[in-house]
Amino acid sequence: MDKNFSLPLVESNDQPEVSEDLAELYQGFESEHLIPLWTQIGDLMPQHPRSKAIPHLWRWADLVQLAARAGDLVPVGRGGERRAIALANPGLAGKPFATPTLWAAIQYLMPHEDAPEHRHTQHAFRFVVEGEGVWTVVNGDPVAMRRGDFLPQAGWNWHAHHNGAAAPMAWIDGLDIPYSYYTETQFFEFGRDALSPQERATPAYSRSERIWAHPGLVPLGANTTSRGTPLLAYRWAHTNEALAEQLALESEGYPATLEPGHAAVRFCDPRSGADVLPTLRCEMHRIAPGAITSTSQVVGSSVVQVFDGRGRVTVGDKTWDVDRGDMFVVPSWATYSVAANHEQSASESGALDLFSFSDAPIIEAIGAHNLHTGVQ
Amino acid sequence: MDKNFSLPLVESNDQPEVSEDLAELYQGFESEHLIPLWTQIGDLMPQHPRSKAIPHLWRWADLVQLAARAGDLVPVGRGGERRAIALANPGLAGKPFATPTLWAAIQYLMPHEDAPEHRHTQHAFRFVVEGEGVWTVVNGDPVAMRRGDFLPQAGWNWHAHHNGAAAPMAWIDGLDIPYSYYTETQFFEFGRDALSPQERATPAYSRSERIWAHPGLVPLGANTTSRGTPLLAYRWAHTNEALAEQLALESEGYPATLEPGHAAVRFCDPRSGADVLPTLRCEMHRIAPGAITSTSQVVGSSVVQVFDGRGRVTVGDKTWDVDRGDMFVVPSWATYSVAANHEQSASESGALDLFSFSDAPIIEAIGAHNLHTGVQ
Amino acid sequence: MDKNFSLPLVESNDQPEVSEDLAELYQGFESEHLIPLWTQIGDLMPQHPRSKAIPHLWRWADLVQLAARAGDLVPVGRGGERRAIALANPGLAGKPFATPTLWAAIQYLMPHEDAPEHRHTQHAFRFVVEGEGVWTVVNGDPVAMRRGDFLPQAGWNWHAHHNGAAAPMAWIDGLDIPYSYYTETQFFEFGRDALSPQERATPAYSRSERIWAHPGLVPLGANTTSRGTPLLAYRWAHTNEALAEQLALESEGYPATLEPGHAAVRFCDPRSGADVLPTLRCEMHRIAPGAITSTSQVVGSSVVQVFDGRGRVTVGDKTWDVDRGDMFVVPSWATYSVAANHEQSASESGALDLFSFSDAPIIEAIGAHNLHTGVQ
Amino acid sequence: MDKNFSLPLVESNDQPEVSEDLAELYQGFESEHLIPLWTQIGDLMPQHPRSKAIPHLWRWADLVQLAARAGDLVPVGRGGERRAIALANPGLAGKPFATPTLWAAIQYLMPHEDAPEHRHTQHAFRFVVEGEGVWTVVNGDPVAMRRGDFLPQAGWNWHAHHNGAAAPMAWIDGLDIPYSYYTETQFFEFGRDALSPQERATPAYSRSERIWAHPGLVPLGANTTSRGTPLLAYRWAHTNEALAEQLALESEGYPATLEPGHAAVRFCDPRSGADVLPTLRCEMHRIAPGAITSTSQVVGSSVVQVFDGRGRVTVGDKTWDVDRGDMFVVPSWATYSVAANHEQSASESGALDLFSFSDAPIIEAIGAHNLHTGVQ
Repeated sequence: MDKNFSLPLVESNDQPEVSEDLAELYQGFESEHLIPLWTQIGDLMPQHPRSKAIPHLWRWADLVQLAARAGDLVPVGRGGERRAIALANPGLAGKPFATPTLWAAIQYLMPHEDAPEHRHTQHAFRFVVEGEGVWTVVNGDPVAMRRGDFLPQAGWNWHAHHNGAAAPMAWIDGLDIPYSYYTETQFFEFGRDALSPQERATPAYSRSERIWAHPGLVPLGANTTSRGTPLLAYRWAHTNEALAEQLALESEGYPATLEPGHAAVRFCDPRSGADVLPTLRCEMHRIAPGAITSTSQVVGSSVVQVFDGRGRVTVGDKTWDVDRGDMFVVPSWATYSVAANHEQSASESGALDLFSFSDAPIIEAIGAHNLHTGVQ
Repeated sequence: MDKNFSLPLVESNDQPEVSEDLAELYQGFESEHLIPLWTQIGDLMPQHPRSKAIPHLWRWADLVQLAARAGDLVPVGRGGERRAIALANPGLAGKPFATPTLWAAIQYLMPHEDAPEHRHTQHAFRFVVEGEGVWTVVNGDPVAMRRGDFLPQAGWNWHAHHNGAAAPMAWIDGLDIPYSYYTETQFFEFGRDALSPQERATPAYSRSERIWAHPGLVPLGANTTSRGTPLLAYRWAHTNEALAEQLALESEGYPATLEPGHAAVRFCDPRSGADVLPTLRCEMHRIAPGAITSTSQVVGSSVVQVFDGRGRVTVGDKTWDVDRGDMFVVPSWATYSVAANHEQSASESGALDLFSFSDAPIIEAIGAHNLHTGVQ
Repeated sequence: MDKNFSLPLVESNDQPEVSEDLAELYQGFESEHLIPLWTQIGDLMPQHPRSKAIPHLWRWADLVQLAARAGDLVPVGRGGERRAIALANPGLAGKPFATPTLWAAIQYLMPHEDAPEHRHTQHAFRFVVEGEGVWTVVNGDPVAMRRGDFLPQAGWNWHAHHNGAAAPMAWIDGLDIPYSYYTETQFFEFGRDALSPQERATPAYSRSERIWAHPGLVPLGANTTSRGTPLLAYRWAHTNEALAEQLALESEGYPATLEPGHAAVRFCDPRSGADVLPTLRCEMHRIAPGAITSTSQVVGSSVVQVFDGRGRVTVGDKTWDVDRGDMFVVPSWATYSVAANHEQSASESGALDLFSFSDAPIIEAIGAHNLHTGVQ
Repeated sequence: MDKNFSLPLVESNDQPEVSEDLAELYQGFESEHLIPLWTQIGDLMPQHPRSKAIPHLWRWADLVQLAARAGDLVPVGRGGERRAIALANPGLAGKPFATPTLWAAIQYLMPHEDAPEHRHTQHAFRFVVEGEGVWTVVNGDPVAMRRGDFLPQAGWNWHAHHNGAAAPMAWIDGLDIPYSYYTETQFFEFGRDALSPQERATPAYSRSERIWAHPGLVPLGANTTSRGTPLLAYRWAHTNEALAEQLALESEGYPATLEPGHAAVRFCDPRSGADVLPTLRCEMHRIAPGAITSTSQVVGSSVVQVFDGRGRVTVGDKTWDVDRGDMFVVPSWATYSVAANHEQSASESGALDLFSFSDAPIIEAIGAHNLHTGVQ
């Protein structure tokens, strides 16, 4: 039997004493591929979620340095597909998963390098904490990537990455790889080996934005049924303004923020207001200087990257001082709070900005987020 | 790194040669809790689902014999909670899971024995292939269990089992334990240690049936918002009649069956027509003597029990002759077909009846069932 | 200008004095097909709904007597289509509408008479307060009609009526004719002039019931997307049992009724639990002897027929003693309550049974039922 | 009986000859408030919608001239509430309704004049074809009104209008007054008689825009459950850009328009992508110079205003040359097409821009838009 399943029972003294007869029965179970509940229940049915993942922090400087070294040593091409390096939660037994359901990686592209076209049913996004120069080409539509931009990539769309600049560029990828791996729902297809000249163009805005990035306006002639958002880039200018306005309204005395000093927006499908991807919830939070968030504790896990500013983060029994680019995980049912430093001199917005993504859509799709409360 | 992740790549020769520099980089990754995508992609992102679970069959006679032995040796009580013995798929590394998302177990209760009250967020059901005499008491409502009955048990309802008879009784439990285990969404609470005299009553029908088991009629005064069906028993008389009528109509020349000689019903929430449980789809299929089903291949896994009759089942590269009570698994994306024997002399309905449950609700909730087809 | 629009204003003294100049302006409005709001607002925008319909009662004896006379004098055939006689609310200016949105009629078929096949987008139902012998043939499926049966008929299904008996039969039709008339959404098509011998068969149960009338069971091979319920008959035996069980459970001390002594069920689409027809909500209520309902006041109107028993009904400022078959209307926002007589000697169920239908689905579809409460 | 109900039958010769006996029966019907179907069916159940409304055009110059005269003669105040003048379709028997379900009016406010605060369950919007200087104050939030702006006003929100400028201003109001009048669902409440100084402020942007007008971004701290959009202004700059981009993409060879030369956007609730109001669909269409739309024919009616440019419009058997501000109605099931003039010198966008609103949400809510097609 798997070691994972030898954790202590709810009340281990309830375990029956293993007589010779019982040992024989257990032998019979094993040979028939059976396992009794009573030896496993403590691990399988705890009184509340006890995540195998642990709270953990990765420093952006370390991530970039190792990714850059990979840029020198590892080519990008068909088969390996992407120079992406995944955050592997120390509690997850060597699996390349940030949490049991979420994949987070730093991706790195050298000057004038391309990552080849493919598509897969895993839902993905890119988020850019620094740099620019890469275009993600989605179904032939080149989408610029610049600091602060959020690029969702719903499953089964063709995509490639093209670095049109003379400098390397790093960004983060978020995917539902662990979830699709576990539920065994993955499909993958190779695309063309090279992009066309038109696809290697570097327009400031994608066609998807020109059609979809108009607030409250839905085009009548466009695809309205594909799964996942048709808007392929959520630009920093919009996100920044939305957050700034929430704090400004708060200071004018109007309700607008999530809690005092804490502005937040969710990236959504403009056709439905639903989560931007069927399996991933993505948000940007801004904590005003000196503000402290309330402590949350939710069913389901998330990964957070510091986009700008500095603060102190507490997840479960861990506390870290964080800076631009740092990434950390919040396991299921772990407590979580953030305090923004009073001084935010290095921050563009003058505040602590946090990008986060979580598995909330899959948790909520089956109603597991609040089932235990009896309130539905 | 986990052995599971050393599977061959899509094209393993694309793997970069491990120079001294690269080995050093890999060492750096490991110390920083990072894992590159390019060594894992073949396992994580296959061209179609390749289930770790394997097609496997458990014989009912074996299950009952071992469960009965457990009845002799293992008491039922607080802590172990249930005398349930789980089907452990040989491909799943010693975990007590029938498939990556589904739990299936035989549960066994000795004469006049009670299994104590508790509740958990895992969704569950009972299905009875033989015997009677046990009542499952749900929030104080005693629900009789008899051959052919299907008893759904949505998460977070209090429940206990009470054997009011002089004979032991076995049945199967289906739960989403693996799914909730992996997504880390479990809550559990102990209930009272003993049932009240009213709860130990043994009425023929539960109060839930008296309120909800009227076709097309929704009571105006009853709870209509709880998660999971309010109807706690789906009786064999109804299921049998529904299947018989489909085959009768087919023989009269009218469309009614799923395919020739193949009748099927889904157990549904009468308030919504939705799957009877948020995470589990449960169905009963009847294959007429000599009929052969078409071959299916779906995203997501299922577990099937032969309720009655005899036939030959093919799952992937395995073929078994099956009989009453036998249980088998259909892993994600495995091909599956059934042929009913021409002679069904031992079958009550004169056909091959199969009870099945699957993870389809969670697969469909995120749209993974057909994302790869591009048809949505 | 329409007389209807000369009702007093909210504050009529706010109406501007009609000077010569203003009279000229009003003349200009009229010639340009314009009407000012300020002369109409009191009628258009009252402080709460003031229905043009009035509470009114029709006696069953009168309805049947006139319908029978029509049976003697008026043939049924192509063009007139049905021998149906509509309740015309005295407040609705000669329109054949029971309420502004609902049509209610008595239909009458002589022995061995057929009403020809047609289809229309109006949604309809039949409800039988007495008699039997007629089959409604829906898309070729003969559906028996007997006392207490409810037969929904979603729009755009072919249907004809066939009296296979030696006696005439009367029943009530409910449709959304006024609503479709006002929103101008009607389509109509003639069908075949005669039914086939198979369609003139008189089976005890329709094929639709054989497929769909199994509680909580949805057939996998059947049409699951048509608009409106696929179940074509809701039999009295089921309805009666559901109501009886609610009162029995109440007497045993369990919650099951809508309020003390008041059982109620809604006829629903078994695929969705939604209202049985997209525009009509249909229910059966049972008031125990001597019980009195609470007084309701809802947005939207309804029509009620006494199915069995006797009682006293109050709608707005009207009160009637009612008996089997009597029909009355409850206009929008009118108060409504019912008291069942203590003695119910003539009633089969020993109680007062009321069949009702309303426009609630269209009211709720746009959220008008509770918009004024600010609670949504 | 109402004259409206004497229209010819489908086949009038099917009407039974009125013998003395039948005349007596008809007398009996009348005295019992009954009306037979067979004399009404041709009007009630036509083979397709035959709107009582007729295609009609109102010239903007006429509307403004009469509204300005009303500005001189009719004060705005409590009771009359608004200086609004409704388009009264010549086919609708003197009712102040543009179509059977839609209200359209020109509203006019003199310099420094206020229209008093009230709220009602009718859903409303304002659209500005020319001018500026008025603020609509919604629940205390002042919303500027300028040429091209669209201001939705979901039911039951407090609102007043305040002209802060030295010039009068005219705009159009669209409401579901006829629909709520006919379904009898109206509630109305007077608000305060005067606005506070803060509410008389004239900010460039409302608070609602500062919170909600960010594409694809949903604020986490804001009201997300109110009925109707929380975004109170859709600015012309956004609408114009969205339309311009669609035509630009078309010229670049990409799919983006509704049909060649025809760009279109729908105003939507940013939380859901649903129609901006529960009962009204609002859109802006741009027809390139010389382009001709395909001919549509839909169930349900609409009202259109020319926002800019010139063209020729055909509705049913009517054809008009139209110019800025002109308004016309498209009755249910009437054919409709538009041709933009080749020269659009006076148009800002260089094209023909049409604002339209319709009753599509109520038609679609009950599935009446395509029920007759059998495709659902």
